[in-house]
Amino acid sequence: MADIFLALLHHPVVDRHQRIVTSSITSLDIHDLARSSCTFGVRAFFIVHPVAEQREFAATVIDHWRFDFGRSFDSRRREALDLVQIVADLDAAVAAAEHLSGSRPTIAYTSARNTGGLSFAELRRWIEQPETRPLLILLGTGFGLAPEVLDRCDLVMEPIRGAGDYNHLSVRAAGAIILDRLRGR
Amino acid sequence: MADIFLALLHHPVVDRHQRIVTSSITSLDIHDLARSSCTFGVRAFFIVHPVAEQREFAATVIDHWRFDFGRSFDSRRREALDLVQIVADLDAAVAAAEHLSGSRPTIAYTSARNTGGLSFAELRRWIEQPETRPLLILLGTGFGLAPEVLDRCDLVMEPIRGAGDYNHLSVRAAGAIILDRLRGR
Repeated sequence: MADIFLALLHHPVVDRHQRIVTSSITSLDIHDLARSSCTFGVRAFFIVHPVAEQREFAATVIDHWRFDFGRSFDSRRREALDLVQIVADLDAAVAAAEHLSGSRPTIAYTSARNTGGLSFAELRRWIEQPETRPLLILLGTGFGLAPEVLDRCDLVMEPIRGAGDYNHLSVRAAGAIILDRLRGR
Repeated sequence: MADIFLALLHHPVVDRHQRIVTSSITSLDIHDLARSSCTFGVRAFFIVHPVAEQREFAATVIDHWRFDFGRSFDSRRREALDLVQIVADLDAAVAAAEHLSGSRPTIAYTSARNTGGLSFAELRRWIEQPETRPLLILLGTGFGLAPEVLDRCDLVMEPIRGAGDYNHLSVRAAGAIILDRLRGR
């Protein structure tokens, strides 16, 4: 079975006017996506931010739960946060995934705005094959990944569809659902 | 197809020592679960809190996005937040669901700690039947719903399982996955 990696990008992403921006790191994103990653067997979860001070903030959030207060309050969080790696850009995430898995990952994304794309059922069957390369799933903060990131992806997953036309999920909810569709039982 | 309702309980829930406590309302819970509710066609999403000041806080979070700044910033949030109803206890949520749907809802929960339970596939088939009563899904904050709430439930859903034994999802992630398993496409 192929390794799955998750990366949460804070740059380059778009705002509501489709302008390229850098978003701030949110501590709840780290916690929620780390716990979902741990539940669904993700190999590593990358927090991607170009600004050193923001990466340091993410590190303090994680250390709070790794040591002292957090560790005694809820040891299950620590296990999830051990999956987190904080990196400066997508190249660093790809390199780290390749280092862990031994082969270059296929980079994938889904978007509420796209049409078509590989179905989650097909992708699930594909990554369950023994020889499949690792999969690196990109999640965008703000109003989504910038076009230059989408251009780097090897694979587009179908959008998550619900009961009607509305599909504006939070990145925390979308990440959880994607992992459940690929690895849930 | 049966109506689905969601209720997020802040009391009675348990802390890490299984003591009965009342948790605080978190604005991101409201946003994430409202957007997931809207995506998966939930009829109403109940925020349940016994303390009036906490209910007022929830109302201000919602009004911020319904009017003024929030409305112009992201109109898609408003649509989701229109599904939110703030109530004092589970009885009020059950009564409101019955008022909206015309029949008393079946009350259901899932827990990482339980074993067995109705599978999501079976429950999905059941609620797709034309004559099925509405379904009210309870979500617990803190470390989960108190035993007295579980005793009131008519139906236990199987736990959400991932790749291994770890399944400590956030309430935002668990809610999203439950709705996707019941209504996702």
